[in-house]
Amino acid sequence: MKQIKAEIIAIGDELLYGQIVDTNSHWISQELTKIGVRVIQRTTVGDQKESILKAFGEAEKRADVILITGGLGPTNDDLTKPLLASYFGCDIALVPEALEAVRTFFEKRGRELTPLNELQAHLPTKCTYVPNEVGTAPGMWFEENGTQWMSMPGVPHEMKKLMEDFVLPRIKASHDLPIIYHKVIKTVGIGESWLADLIKNWESSLPEHIKLAYLPSLGQVKLRLTAFGEDYDELQADVETQINLVKPLINKYIFGYNTETLEEAVGRLLKQANKKVALAESCTGGYISHLVTSVPGSSKYFQGGIIPYHNEFKTSLLSVDTEVLKNQGAVSEPTVIAMAEEVRKKFNADFGLASSGIAGPGGGWKEKPVGTIWIACSSREKTITKKLQLTQDRMLNIQLTAIAALNLLRQVLTKQTE
Amino acid sequence: MKQIKAEIIAIGDELLYGQIVDTNSHWISQELTKIGVRVIQRTTVGDQKESILKAFGEAEKRADVILITGGLGPTNDDLTKPLLASYFGCDIALVPEALEAVRTFFEKRGRELTPLNELQAHLPTKCTYVPNEVGTAPGMWFEENGTQWMSMPGVPHEMKKLMEDFVLPRIKASHDLPIIYHKVIKTVGIGESWLADLIKNWESSLPEHIKLAYLPSLGQVKLRLTAFGEDYDELQADVETQINLVKPLINKYIFGYNTETLEEAVGRLLKQANKKVALAESCTGGYISHLVTSVPGSSKYFQGGIIPYHNEFKTSLLSVDTEVLKNQGAVSEPTVIAMAEEVRKKFNADFGLASSGIAGPGGGWKEKPVGTIWIACSSREKTITKKLQLTQDRMLNIQLTAIAALNLLRQVLTKQTE
Repeated sequence: MKQIKAEIIAIGDELLYGQIVDTNSHWISQELTKIGVRVIQRTTVGDQKESILKAFGEAEKRADVILITGGLGPTNDDLTKPLLASYFGCDIALVPEALEAVRTFFEKRGRELTPLNELQAHLPTKCTYVPNEVGTAPGMWFEENGTQWMSMPGVPHEMKKLMEDFVLPRIKASHDLPIIYHKVIKTVGIGESWLADLIKNWESSLPEHIKLAYLPSLGQVKLRLTAFGEDYDELQADVETQINLVKPLINKYIFGYNTETLEEAVGRLLKQANKKVALAESCTGGYISHLVTSVPGSSKYFQGGIIPYHNEFKTSLLSVDTEVLKNQGAVSEPTVIAMAEEVRKKFNADFGLASSGIAGPGGGWKEKPVGTIWIACSSREKTITKKLQLTQDRMLNIQLTAIAALNLLRQVLTKQTE
Repeated sequence: MKQIKAEIIAIGDELLYGQIVDTNSHWISQELTKIGVRVIQRTTVGDQKESILKAFGEAEKRADVILITGGLGPTNDDLTKPLLASYFGCDIALVPEALEAVRTFFEKRGRELTPLNELQAHLPTKCTYVPNEVGTAPGMWFEENGTQWMSMPGVPHEMKKLMEDFVLPRIKASHDLPIIYHKVIKTVGIGESWLADLIKNWESSLPEHIKLAYLPSLGQVKLRLTAFGEDYDELQADVETQINLVKPLINKYIFGYNTETLEEAVGRLLKQANKKVALAESCTGGYISHLVTSVPGSSKYFQGGIIPYHNEFKTSLLSVDTEVLKNQGAVSEPTVIAMAEEVRKKFNADFGLASSGIAGPGGGWKEKPVGTIWIACSSREKTITKKLQLTQDRMLNIQLTAIAALNLLRQVLTKQTE
């Protein structure tokens, strides 16, 4: 089976100037990968004739499928259509069907057809006209020398509709595509190199048809297993076999699979145990509560929270002893313990989660530099704590503390702390 | 003056598989554009030797500056470093200074250096070692045949720090770049087309050398003025003249300039007035507090907050009348008024800001569909409210509510509500 290779070309000065984020290329990458087409390159060029023609020529040398977005509007700086005609050596002519579609599009919206929009119904004679039901610039499909080309408008919802209705089905129908199965193991609380160290023997004994990739992000590392073969169920079984082998080595770091986030995983564990949580956030200033409540349905297990940003409110709202604050300070183990316990009681929750620290950039001193942060998780039975020594960066400290706190709760829920 | 051309190369299968969004290329595009470097192409390739080397070769043919991100981690699938050495025909050798930096990085975090991490201090002999203060993979700077190359890790905050501390200053110092002056006017509370309508006469009378761009983002629109010329001070004066002309037309929507965020602008206004705020967040679940506290120094004006996610806590913690909750519901004007007033008093603040609504996707009904949200801002003198009718999307509703609430407080602080 021949591997089908695709290249994505995005056209537009506004992309190169950083005025618009190119979400199209990312989405197309995902969709092609899902159907077993290998994306080998993404190229972004500006509205210059030479760069666009060069990109076409280079892409044709390496790809079987070339998907082009952008440069199709009615205005002067849109070059894609004339350049496609010139690249394929054909004329541009009116396609009556396309004109009818543009006319209907405008009629439905109670607007008049402008001459500029009429021009959008003129297409290279070598292309197959692909109707765009949600916009005015049609799709153009070419097949030349065994390569398939599709040109689409850059407006994301128009591109997506053309991809889903026409391009993806057409590619699937015309190629004998390999079967691919992906599964992502999501870990937290361990760095990439330590993880790699723990699983190096497993990794080196992976079968040929299964590839492993490390995808680190803030405080987390994803392990992506990709299996290539002939039979989907078989690949799935092969990947599951490998996951079962690696699990014992790193089980305590695994919080979920595929797209599940840490806050979703913690929510799932809380729901399964029929438990509720409340939050007392000082240095994280509401960020942990935000993560928890960003999950639909979180009202099932999130009771509420208190953000006692100043010490007086740690005392008035969370009964932290003024003597503790005076002697050990707000950034101390007894303070987070008191906060976690009191917020749990106050919200009639099963778990209280608390943070207190110096997020920075100001406020640190020798004994407690910026990045010194205490977290605590209180249950009805006991309260566990952790001291973090993080970075100089305020946002990073807030985010890393949130991940560590959610992970602490996850560890309690999965009984790793006993 | 020669135009300096740049190409951005992003490396990683995870990008082509669509598993990670490439935010780096977009950010780099923006920063290079700001200093007058023209980005002519962005190329994304996978972890394949041949594709990477081909991309290097093609880029060298057209660009003066080549910025590479990704493929620098300690694990096996990272290829960039050996390929750079092979491309430039040099060895890889230990850089003691780099080893010291990696060792310090780990020591500070109380972790042991692994052999994999030690390898990160081995660099191509032709490169200039660029210390990465926030990560373990160093930057590598090459100058060959008049072309400047920089290889950076793909982790965004590491890449950004290397760009800001080293790459951008270095490019500026080594080329005769055109003079460009940018200023961004930041607006909130008005859509792009309404804004365009208010300023259309001003826009059409802008001088030739000043360009205007509309940059819409969630709930906000930025107006970027870019002036091109010979003399920086003159350009700055020209842009200020234009801003003074447009200001009277849209003054009440302007919250700040350039990079100031809405939460920073609100913080600045609070500090100027020597006032303090407290938050009572139901449907926003801590997100507004998070935005406020993401600003360094926010402890000067943020007292704290309460997140009474369930109705019982709106009563027990914020004294919302149970009769009000029963008759008018949690998503109602009297509820947010009571929340805003009580949180202001409880935290001894000058302003109380409150939200209560149906973020979705569940929980809506005919009279109060998903997206129905009340916000309130209470001062010592009065309490003002606003009803929002937002979207079906939970995260969007949370974000748009936060922007509307901060804008409400901004309007109170700038006395637009009197």
